Amino acid sequence: MIQVAVNGYGTIGKRVADAVTLQPDMELVGVAKTSPNHEAELAAENGYPLYAAVEDRIELFDAAGIELAGTVDELVDAADIVVDACPSGIGAENRPLYEAHDTPALYQGGEDADLVDTSFNARANYADAEGADHVRVVSCNTTGLSRLFAPLEEAYGVEKARVTLVRRGGDPGQTDRGPINDILPNPVALPSHHGPDVNTIFPDLSIDTLGLKVPATLMHTHSVNVQLDPDADGMPSADEVRELLAEEDRTFMIQSRHDIDGAGKLKEYALDRGRPRGDLWENCVWTESVSVEDDDLYLFQAIHQESDVVPENVDAIRAVLGTADAGESRERTDETMGMGL
Amino acid sequence: MIQVAVNGYGTIGKRVADAVTLQPDMELVGVAKTSPNHEAELAAENGYPLYAAVEDRIELFDAAGIELAGTVDELVDAADIVVDACPSGIGAENRPLYEAHDTPALYQGGEDADLVDTSFNARANYADAEGADHVRVVSCNTTGLSRLFAPLEEAYGVEKARVTLVRRGGDPGQTDRGPINDILPNPVALPSHHGPDVNTIFPDLSIDTLGLKVPATLMHTHSVNVQLDPDADGMPSADEVRELLAEEDRTFMIQSRHDIDGAGKLKEYALDRGRPRGDLWENCVWTESVSVEDDDLYLFQAIHQESDVVPENVDAIRAVLGTADAGESRERTDETMGMGL
Repeated sequence: MIQVAVNGYGTIGKRVADAVTLQPDMELVGVAKTSPNHEAELAAENGYPLYAAVEDRIELFDAAGIELAGTVDELVDAADIVVDACPSGIGAENRPLYEAHDTPALYQGGEDADLVDTSFNARANYADAEGADHVRVVSCNTTGLSRLFAPLEEAYGVEKARVTLVRRGGDPGQTDRGPINDILPNPVALPSHHGPDVNTIFPDLSIDTLGLKVPATLMHTHSVNVQLDPDADGMPSADEVRELLAEEDRTFMIQSRHDIDGAGKLKEYALDRGRPRGDLWENCVWTESVSVEDDDLYLFQAIHQESDVVPENVDAIRAVLGTADAGESRERTDETMGMGL
Repeated sequence: MIQVAVNGYGTIGKRVADAVTLQPDMELVGVAKTSPNHEAELAAENGYPLYAAVEDRIELFDAAGIELAGTVDELVDAADIVVDACPSGIGAENRPLYEAHDTPALYQGGEDADLVDTSFNARANYADAEGADHVRVVSCNTTGLSRLFAPLEEAYGVEKARVTLVRRGGDPGQTDRGPINDILPNPVALPSHHGPDVNTIFPDLSIDTLGLKVPATLMHTHSVNVQLDPDADGMPSADEVRELLAEEDRTFMIQSRHDIDGAGKLKEYALDRGRPRGDLWENCVWTESVSVEDDDLYLFQAIHQESDVVPENVDAIRAVLGTADAGESRERTDETMGMGL
């Protein structure tokens, strides 16, 4: 049994911890948290051993009546691997801790690519992570793009990708974020970081990305153009691309009969089906939007920023420790989590 | 003096009426309106003769104590040209009225291109409207794209344009519109109507457009990709494109020193400078966003849906009646309205 520690029990950490407990080959050693807030109480309610992420905050947990199993140092020491799900930048600060204990670590997409041996997407470059000490599971948006580009690259070849990312301003709980009633080019200067980030997974892919922020909290939406390789044997039809994408395990092809026009109805669809927290781990692609004009493929997809990286983190654990190959790991993760809408 | 009637005194009509009164070669005969709401009162306050757009509503104006100069029939009869600024689809219903009086008419972008002899943009195809009886001033978004493509096509040639239009859900006063907290691909099936609409101005331009709607009211934002003609003599630098666009009279190049990150600050900039209603008649292009990667040009521009077509309507009046050429008309319109930020 793989002993997994989760450092950081916020948006990503709490979801990864839950997913780890579902895996037949993994055991959750515990989770570490900075503050005794409602999520710390949740860890206790779930019976997850809770560790103090910062030593001088222990008394806060005591004051809140939340029992601690120890400090993050002890947690990391007891684990075969640690999933760092701390806020952007904190992962880099934590790296020496993991090195001190010789515990391999996964980081999230908010960290710099330079911090790690390899960036990771389960569909695109699973094997690259084997034996690595420091692996970065790429961000929600880069995960969504990698899942899309992998089959397109394999089936047709990609000449160039151009993506406009219409990003939610903040998560539902991030009440200090904006904008309100505005559409912000963000960043104004191109490219956005997403293009270079995709290149950490597909080094040779030609991609330009533009980002905007809007007053929405539920999901990101990508307006995707992929110019397919003009030297390939004929362009695929839109239906052929739809069939190709429908075969992907972590892609939900929204049908027109679903009457789903945006993220609100997508979340409702997931909640109606009992998904934990209404999570949408899959790329949500509007089937109707898939179009081919000359050698240009277009589509819209929605990406759930809070959850699409969760199965990727689970797979990255096995990839690093070399306990399963990509197909085995993805299948096990999908089955235990209940992937497939 | 050109006698101008404005039928429909809403978002566009009231702005066009104001702009017409500023023209040394035009006289506003009057405006027609359906309901005696606050805008009808505004027409009265401005001293604009008010006509009833629908005969059986006359008593509503009487009841509201708003004096009428007559019916729309009389207004059209007295005019050399009528600007139809009625809601989408009503323009088509009004066409027989204008024909009955042999009065040439301008329609707005919400009408079908089939309704008219030619679609119109002052920068791109001014001369096409001369002598036409029915002319459509294209929509705010198509106007914004036409102003952008015209100089690019002239200077470099356009191989293909791909535009994602992140559209405001409704105008500030359209309280029945959405979405709230969502990002909607709209339409889901491609292309959006904008591409074909641009082709009414540039018939040979290869363009694909994708539209979305978001919870914002102030302006639309375009994420623009223009693949320049690869056969041209070398690609321009980003700075050369910036200089080219800066020479356009109806383009505002937002500088990084302005610290303008979106539509809210753009509106504030316009209001601070005393623009009527805070209108932004110009394409608002983020200078920093102008980028050239291989033969791909990228940029962001914001488009004020309530006002960018106003100077175009003024120019279309002269174009139809043949009283000035494109350069003369645009210069006169710009000077009287106070174009140039």
